[in-house]
Amino acid sequence: MINLALFGAGRIGFIHGHNAAKHANANLVALYDPFQPNAEKLAKELGCRQMTPEQIFADNSIDAVLICSATDTHADLIEQAVAAGKHVFCEKPIDLSLQRVRECMSKVSKTDSKTMVAFNRRFDPNFQSLQQQIVSGEVGNVELVNILSKDPSPPPVEYIKVSGGLFRDMTIHDFDMARFLLGEEIESVSAHASCMVDPAIGEAGDFDTAAITLTTSSGKLAQISNSRRASFGYDQRVEVHGSKGMLIAQNVNENTVVSYTESGVNSAKPLHFFLQRYDAAYRAELNSFIDYLMGEQVNIPSMHDGLQALVIAEAALKSVAEQRTVKLSEIH
Amino acid sequence: MINLALFGAGRIGFIHGHNAAKHANANLVALYDPFQPNAEKLAKELGCRQMTPEQIFADNSIDAVLICSATDTHADLIEQAVAAGKHVFCEKPIDLSLQRVRECMSKVSKTDSKTMVAFNRRFDPNFQSLQQQIVSGEVGNVELVNILSKDPSPPPVEYIKVSGGLFRDMTIHDFDMARFLLGEEIESVSAHASCMVDPAIGEAGDFDTAAITLTTSSGKLAQISNSRRASFGYDQRVEVHGSKGMLIAQNVNENTVVSYTESGVNSAKPLHFFLQRYDAAYRAELNSFIDYLMGEQVNIPSMHDGLQALVIAEAALKSVAEQRTVKLSEIH
Amino acid sequence: MINLALFGAGRIGFIHGHNAAKHANANLVALYDPFQPNAEKLAKELGCRQMTPEQIFADNSIDAVLICSATDTHADLIEQAVAAGKHVFCEKPIDLSLQRVRECMSKVSKTDSKTMVAFNRRFDPNFQSLQQQIVSGEVGNVELVNILSKDPSPPPVEYIKVSGGLFRDMTIHDFDMARFLLGEEIESVSAHASCMVDPAIGEAGDFDTAAITLTTSSGKLAQISNSRRASFGYDQRVEVHGSKGMLIAQNVNENTVVSYTESGVNSAKPLHFFLQRYDAAYRAELNSFIDYLMGEQVNIPSMHDGLQALVIAEAALKSVAEQRTVKLSEIH
Amino acid sequence: MINLALFGAGRIGFIHGHNAAKHANANLVALYDPFQPNAEKLAKELGCRQMTPEQIFADNSIDAVLICSATDTHADLIEQAVAAGKHVFCEKPIDLSLQRVRECMSKVSKTDSKTMVAFNRRFDPNFQSLQQQIVSGEVGNVELVNILSKDPSPPPVEYIKVSGGLFRDMTIHDFDMARFLLGEEIESVSAHASCMVDPAIGEAGDFDTAAITLTTSSGKLAQISNSRRASFGYDQRVEVHGSKGMLIAQNVNENTVVSYTESGVNSAKPLHFFLQRYDAAYRAELNSFIDYLMGEQVNIPSMHDGLQALVIAEAALKSVAEQRTVKLSEIH
Repeated sequence: MINLALFGAGRIGFIHGHNAAKHANANLVALYDPFQPNAEKLAKELGCRQMTPEQIFADNSIDAVLICSATDTHADLIEQAVAAGKHVFCEKPIDLSLQRVRECMSKVSKTDSKTMVAFNRRFDPNFQSLQQQIVSGEVGNVELVNILSKDPSPPPVEYIKVSGGLFRDMTIHDFDMARFLLGEEIESVSAHASCMVDPAIGEAGDFDTAAITLTTSSGKLAQISNSRRASFGYDQRVEVHGSKGMLIAQNVNENTVVSYTESGVNSAKPLHFFLQRYDAAYRAELNSFIDYLMGEQVNIPSMHDGLQALVIAEAALKSVAEQRTVKLSEIH
Repeated sequence: MINLALFGAGRIGFIHGHNAAKHANANLVALYDPFQPNAEKLAKELGCRQMTPEQIFADNSIDAVLICSATDTHADLIEQAVAAGKHVFCEKPIDLSLQRVRECMSKVSKTDSKTMVAFNRRFDPNFQSLQQQIVSGEVGNVELVNILSKDPSPPPVEYIKVSGGLFRDMTIHDFDMARFLLGEEIESVSAHASCMVDPAIGEAGDFDTAAITLTTSSGKLAQISNSRRASFGYDQRVEVHGSKGMLIAQNVNENTVVSYTESGVNSAKPLHFFLQRYDAAYRAELNSFIDYLMGEQVNIPSMHDGLQALVIAEAALKSVAEQRTVKLSEIH
Repeated sequence: MINLALFGAGRIGFIHGHNAAKHANANLVALYDPFQPNAEKLAKELGCRQMTPEQIFADNSIDAVLICSATDTHADLIEQAVAAGKHVFCEKPIDLSLQRVRECMSKVSKTDSKTMVAFNRRFDPNFQSLQQQIVSGEVGNVELVNILSKDPSPPPVEYIKVSGGLFRDMTIHDFDMARFLLGEEIESVSAHASCMVDPAIGEAGDFDTAAITLTTSSGKLAQISNSRRASFGYDQRVEVHGSKGMLIAQNVNENTVVSYTESGVNSAKPLHFFLQRYDAAYRAELNSFIDYLMGEQVNIPSMHDGLQALVIAEAALKSVAEQRTVKLSEIH
Repeated sequence: MINLALFGAGRIGFIHGHNAAKHANANLVALYDPFQPNAEKLAKELGCRQMTPEQIFADNSIDAVLICSATDTHADLIEQAVAAGKHVFCEKPIDLSLQRVRECMSKVSKTDSKTMVAFNRRFDPNFQSLQQQIVSGEVGNVELVNILSKDPSPPPVEYIKVSGGLFRDMTIHDFDMARFLLGEEIESVSAHASCMVDPAIGEAGDFDTAAITLTTSSGKLAQISNSRRASFGYDQRVEVHGSKGMLIAQNVNENTVVSYTESGVNSAKPLHFFLQRYDAAYRAELNSFIDYLMGEQVNIPSMHDGLQALVIAEAALKSVAEQRTVKLSEIH
């Protein structure tokens, strides 16, 4: 059994906490959240103790920590955790500063701790299946990838202000997905972004709509389409065009009922947002982390993957500002 | 909290046991199965005690029982449970003998126990949504219902011999679904059946392929298509044709990936069998039972529903034998 | 080049007339319709002469006739045509009386004329493809066939009164489709019918909603679902369940656009009625007739096929009346 | 009746010639092609005369010309046609040289001739329906457009060498589609292109795979995905993301049959190439031209539309070369 402690009792802490508590090979021993109402409520639900970070790091029975706290605490907690000999599961992003991420990775590398950055979409059963079909050679050499990712509605502007912006907050998942599917490192980025959804987002210095092209050194292309708004719900699709064919992962719908009436043919909408759509992905993600700790051979997104996605986000910002294609090698 | 005891640690007991153990408003206190290896294994998994039926019925802390044991024990256990003041959740069928079902219902009716017959398909999110769309009037008056139900492969002939036959074992779900969707009692049955899949099934006196028509007194029609074999997996679909439109509940597929290659366009198969397809239905079913016990207003399939489905099965058998339409009123 | 004359300038005469006029290997020489406005209009459109039946039969340059006139003229025209040495393309049904059909077939059999009964659905590209996939062995031995056939709205009651009733007028196409797909003769029929759409149809002695089961001697089953009304348009689908798999021919939609909005996911309706849905089928049907006359090896529905569909319709009527399964061998 | 003459008896001349010959309100009077075998064959099929360009332009009975000849003859023929008082339907592109196109347009503008540039995709029933749904406001303000356009296989390298390259030859359709759907002029272009399909294409100085982003002054974005190869056939799809929803025009498939077997679920491939997919579009396109000449209010793609698509192609080439976003205002 793996003993776990959870940092953060917010929305994403709630998900991983529940999955950890139900896991056959794990115990959720403790959680910490400085916001007491959340901490108390979740600890009660999960039947675990509240402990301070110091207590958690000092407790030798705890094997690993799940870091689901505010972004600006991630790097510090990772460093403290590995210093205390714990393994780490950390929500993306590691940090908004590339410099800070690199420092943190350097410290981790000097320990034996296992770490994982939680790019949940890699664990979605549909994208998993699609990626395995790529690996099996079903569509030959991958040449072009299209990633469509739209949220049902924008977060509050207060969140946007501290989020690091569209590219670091939302598109970062798509950057990782592009790397996951292309099977080759990104060489350059060309990004275009607008504020179409809410002027307040523009006033906060961010975008809400984006079209991005990534290239690899062998000439593969990836296109990302983003919007902070999709009236019909969460739009999460992927297309892969290869030398021998094409793979499309469509949205997951609420149900399979189709209604035919005089006014038309109606079917159910896509699952509304990430809690619904990625429910199975979150479970699979935690399973993989536990398997990883138990010595299984599993593919897990590493801190390097977390770093690379952030580098692409930086390049994308530079590309928008300078209206040109930016090479990743320009980003330090 | 509702305290539950489970009878039967086989395949279906496993499902309901796990759902009960995870339920926020229920405790699974104990289980019983005369086959020790199963009982031991499941009790360990679920962290509950093993108790004898006598102990279970004598234990005043136990509110309700989940009857998932062999069919020929259902009626006895129901009677003992209600005599002991327990509520009852019983797998279908109540019994293969109509006479026995009626006796059992008569005894239950003299108690205050709440009972539910577990027609799981009523709780499938797709069929639920479809039925709610009927109730909302979206397609007007229901006139014709088509139910397609095919298993991936036939059970062992040994099972078939004790199953009560295709109509009482498998089609019984479709008979209940027809009643659920038509919103009106069945008046007559016309059944046609063949042995196309395995001659051994015919030698055992049963069928493996069937086409059945049900009628109601107002002239509504329902057609059921059955096969014990579908090479591609579980085929569970429903169509409702009404005065203002049509509703179709399609199969649920393994994933949403579509592959386009020179050899054609391929998509994932339907979920393989009932464990996969009705996973959510089983959870919702137990939730409804717990809600029912806690005093919520919920629609649950009753013992009367269990009886009616069995009466239709009897009529269907008579229809095949006599090659004519049989009225339910002929069945005693 | 094949020289053709057309009987009937109504709706179906219009279709075949236009297809004949555009055919690369055929000339439409003349047409006849006793209703002058229709005859005049269509002759002008098609650039052909009007001739009387006597003139048509006497004209040695005319190779074949297309019989698209009122049902009660079909058998007479067939007999006169073959007596005059002409080949015959005749709309279904040959006649409403089985006796009359048999007489007519007997006369045809004494000539060298080629004849074809126009079961247009056999030529629909989707059903054609499905049938070829059956023949290729893709789904193994056919065991169960489901045919769904619903019109957008019922014809005028005046038409219904002279139509021969639902089974001879509308279901006849489905009876032929069942024979086409089962690849085996029908042995018995069990039919159930209601009047759900319009009481006036019932007062005229007919039904508007039906559920029919056909069986073959080897135990294959076919189920037909009929309604004279489908609020959303023409519903024309077929399912074939075989030992190795299932084939479904879905409806053809008006276009491929799908709209996702807050109120749901909308797609285009099925093509509205037979003129739209079977446009390609009518062209292919006439092509096959011309190919047949030119000596090609083609599968065309014969007068025997026309007769068999009518026998099944008779048996279905008897089955409804007597509430039992009726063997085709009972129909004389 | 409109009297037409056709220039060019190749593949596209064949299509427009046949549609013209069958048109109810048009006569195809004559055709010209310097390659005699093609000219003779098509003239015979269509039952029209062969005339020289001089004879065509001198013939006062001819109202309009259909220019389907080699690209480098388009501009000259347009100028001669309008000088002779004829209306003009011209295949895209008008010319590969922007300078030449502008000269030609200037000459046309001094006449009363009606002209149309044949962007056939605007007339595809699916894209038409999608565009009308945009205009109806169904998805609100258009914010992002995705256009996927892939050919089944690349043309011969000899063709590529004289084609003007991927952007002027193939993507030009997508540039026009973007303008058609965005309802706003393009302001800038950012293009990325690779040679993934065939090195010989790269050696000829062209690309075979491309990812392009277009922006408008109000911030709307369009993304185009191109490949010269799609193993499964012609891939022609469009997505429009608006403030109130999304519209997707899917591919058109060969038939509606779906096959379910042990090895998976198979459906028909998309229609193979433009002759199949745009068959209806070509008919609608010529219908619109004839309607236009007869004074109807119709939206037809103008020479200005032809010019704009070419300007975007030029900007795209410059963008690839300079690895930056290029404004259309930079192109002269």
